Amino acid sequence: MTLKMDKKALQIFLTEHFPQVADDYVVDEAGEERLVLRLAVDHRHLRPGNTVSGPTLFALADVAVYLAILSKIGPEALAVTTNCSIDFMRKPKADTDLLCEVRILKLGRALAVGEAYIRSAGQEDLVARAGLTYSIPPKGLKNMG
Amino acid sequence: MTLKMDKKALQIFLTEHFPQVADDYVVDEAGEERLVLRLAVDHRHLRPGNTVSGPTLFALADVAVYLAILSKIGPEALAVTTNCSIDFMRKPKADTDLLCEVRILKLGRALAVGEAYIRSAGQEDLVARAGLTYSIPPKGLKNMG
Amino acid sequence: MTLKMDKKALQIFLTEHFPQVADDYVVDEAGEERLVLRLAVDHRHLRPGNTVSGPTLFALADVAVYLAILSKIGPEALAVTTNCSIDFMRKPKADTDLLCEVRILKLGRALAVGEAYIRSAGQEDLVARAGLTYSIPPKGLKNMG
Amino acid sequence: MTLKMDKKALQIFLTEHFPQVADDYVVDEAGEERLVLRLAVDHRHLRPGNTVSGPTLFALADVAVYLAILSKIGPEALAVTTNCSIDFMRKPKADTDLLCEVRILKLGRALAVGEAYIRSAGQEDLVARAGLTYSIPPKGLKNMG
Repeated sequence: MTLKMDKKALQIFLTEHFPQVADDYVVDEAGEERLVLRLAVDHRHLRPGNTVSGPTLFALADVAVYLAILSKIGPEALAVTTNCSIDFMRKPKADTDLLCEVRILKLGRALAVGEAYIRSAGQEDLVARAGLTYSIPPKGLKNMG
Repeated sequence: MTLKMDKKALQIFLTEHFPQVADDYVVDEAGEERLVLRLAVDHRHLRPGNTVSGPTLFALADVAVYLAILSKIGPEALAVTTNCSIDFMRKPKADTDLLCEVRILKLGRALAVGEAYIRSAGQEDLVARAGLTYSIPPKGLKNMG
Repeated sequence: MTLKMDKKALQIFLTEHFPQVADDYVVDEAGEERLVLRLAVDHRHLRPGNTVSGPTLFALADVAVYLAILSKIGPEALAVTTNCSIDFMRKPKADTDLLCEVRILKLGRALAVGEAYIRSAGQEDLVARAGLTYSIPPKGLKNMG
Repeated sequence: MTLKMDKKALQIFLTEHFPQVADDYVVDEAGEERLVLRLAVDHRHLRPGNTVSGPTLFALADVAVYLAILSKIGPEALAVTTNCSIDFMRKPKADTDLLCEVRILKLGRALAVGEAYIRSAGQEDLVARAGLTYSIPPKGLKNMG
């Protein structure tokens, strides 16, 4: 399978469609087997205790899997998240970028399933792991089923 | 079981511990059977298509279940989210507050499980439903097991 | 919405399509708002420690939500489970039937979402709670997307 | 970390503690990085359409992650499943063994998290993927928290 969007095209897509958050994210890698999205952690992402908030981790996984799906099916798609299951396992390191590594497990006509592994840059241990399902509407449709 | 924190105490807790987001949330109801948290939807919560972003819905469920646990065990607790499974079912109404209704399904020594139902104010249909598990550390401990 | 299959029709469907397990299950109630499926617990369902096995609880939730969907869309449907998230909360009582109460949260063109609450008969406390998503293939299709 | 139970010890454990199902499962591999459990698919595991039933896949993942935890902490442990999120992605091949590959993502004092990937033997594509959380009670305790 050839990729329909590469690293650069995904970064431009982010800037155009998600201008409020695009600066936080850098597409480090976008290949057929995996995509890596980097979050530049910043005080807005922190919770008391100097830890990254749960919603920040969720958003990172959600955006990363979304981009990985787009890289395979192209930007015209209107995939919507229908389910996410996320395990929070360890506190991330403070003042360290987060790396989110994504694999697409299934890319069907109607559903796509991806998984995301989040680590502090330079660390082996997992901060969080998420599985996400996206509904891919038939062409021409814009609303959820 | 008597509540350890009522509506007012929870709202003050929010303001003290989560000053960045406390203004977004209003504790509408905090009882033994259920807690209702209201999110005043605002342009920062929106995604293209005039819809509320997934991370905003996740954050609403996470904060609401957290407050419901605190209302039962008190503010000294350092509960941390260990798992969340969330289903996104319908687009919320634009320009309408979101209401998140929480029930605690289990409150054990080490784990608490809660569920959250999110609707647009005044609507019956569900926007999203989440189940969350929190780890409750033994007193004196501050890190995840 | 009128039901397409009532209690009796669902029980017959079980017997015809799942003869190996149909005797274990009794459809106690099938209405528009909820369905209740009863499992006659038996030594085959037990694990060491006199507890009902996890797969038995999973199967009960899966069958119950499936029947609740069929009751609304009819028996010709070939819905397949695509996701399940289940929380196991308490040990069920030994030698006691299990009751599984189901509500359908969403019934879309392509996806249905239901939730299942499992209790020992006569008990208030939850044994387990599951959320399940089913993919409903377009008519004429028999495989997963 | 040295393993506390190897392949042979795990197989004996299965036979002693789960005599009803032990014959179905073979521990193909038990190492520090991963465990592989094989299910000899048989007519009892099938559903109409010649497909393996969801509860059979759930049970395979549950047993496999449980054994992987035991291999690391030893057989005296009384770990109980507290949560499972499973995605069913493709129909397995009929008349073919299923292989379940497990990795432990976190092994904490109180919680262990593992993930399971199920494939038909000899196939690359995933049949299902599950994440499971186990509660590990403090020594001497036998009930859930």
